[in-house]
Amino acid sequence: MKSLPVLILLLLLYNTLTAQQNDKIVRIARIEVDASQLEKYKAALQEGIETSIRLELGVLTLYAVAEKNRPTSITVLEVYANAEAYQSHIQTEHFKKYKNATGNMIKSLELIETTPIALGAKS
Amino acid sequence: MKSLPVLILLLLLYNTLTAQQNDKIVRIARIEVDASQLEKYKAALQEGIETSIRLELGVLTLYAVAEKNRPTSITVLEVYANAEAYQSHIQTEHFKKYKNATGNMIKSLELIETTPIALGAKS
Repeated sequence: MKSLPVLILLLLLYNTLTAQQNDKIVRIARIEVDASQLEKYKAALQEGIETSIRLELGVLTLYAVAEKNRPTSITVLEVYANAEAYQSHIQTEHFKKYKNATGNMIKSLELIETTPIALGAKS
Repeated sequence: MKSLPVLILLLLLYNTLTAQQNDKIVRIARIEVDASQLEKYKAALQEGIETSIRLELGVLTLYAVAEKNRPTSITVLEVYANAEAYQSHIQTEHFKKYKNATGNMIKSLELIETTPIALGAKS
């Protein structure tokens, strides 16, 4: 019976960790960029990503890639710690700066909400 | 003139680091899964990812997500340290096991080679 409090503590800890894991917002942005403004767009995206990762605790991953065969087709995989982190992200000055600067460079933008299956990464 | 060797050393180091960064293989797999085998497929994918990240030094990131509105549409963002790491990955027992187990669960598979724009992640 002495180990019961420890067991309860472990269960609480497990629930907290599981909840944190499940809170994550993971999504994919598919962006088509105006070819004549591609280099300017990539520079703005790069700056926005670097600033977000550096300044915002809740922005965990922003992986942006361009397709080799269609360089104007860009995919960004985004991971936020939770919904609050995402809401706070879109209110930041650097996000607004990116949005304003790139508005006329983007031909289409598709935001796809996802459910993680496995987020495997070297720690 | 005393600082010249240090400068050369720094340049060499910078070149090595840049080369390592540029060596990275980053790609996207878009997978359509047979709906009747979705749970089995996800379990196999999860196991394959966890094993690869744990056992293979050169497998840096495997992020697998399912679209919320189309749960049979799965995207995997893959980052390998270099071409050798990728070649070695597809020769491993766990990769072959995943491939054999899931062959008849997959309706279509598109592999998209990409060029990274920014790989931002919390360290």
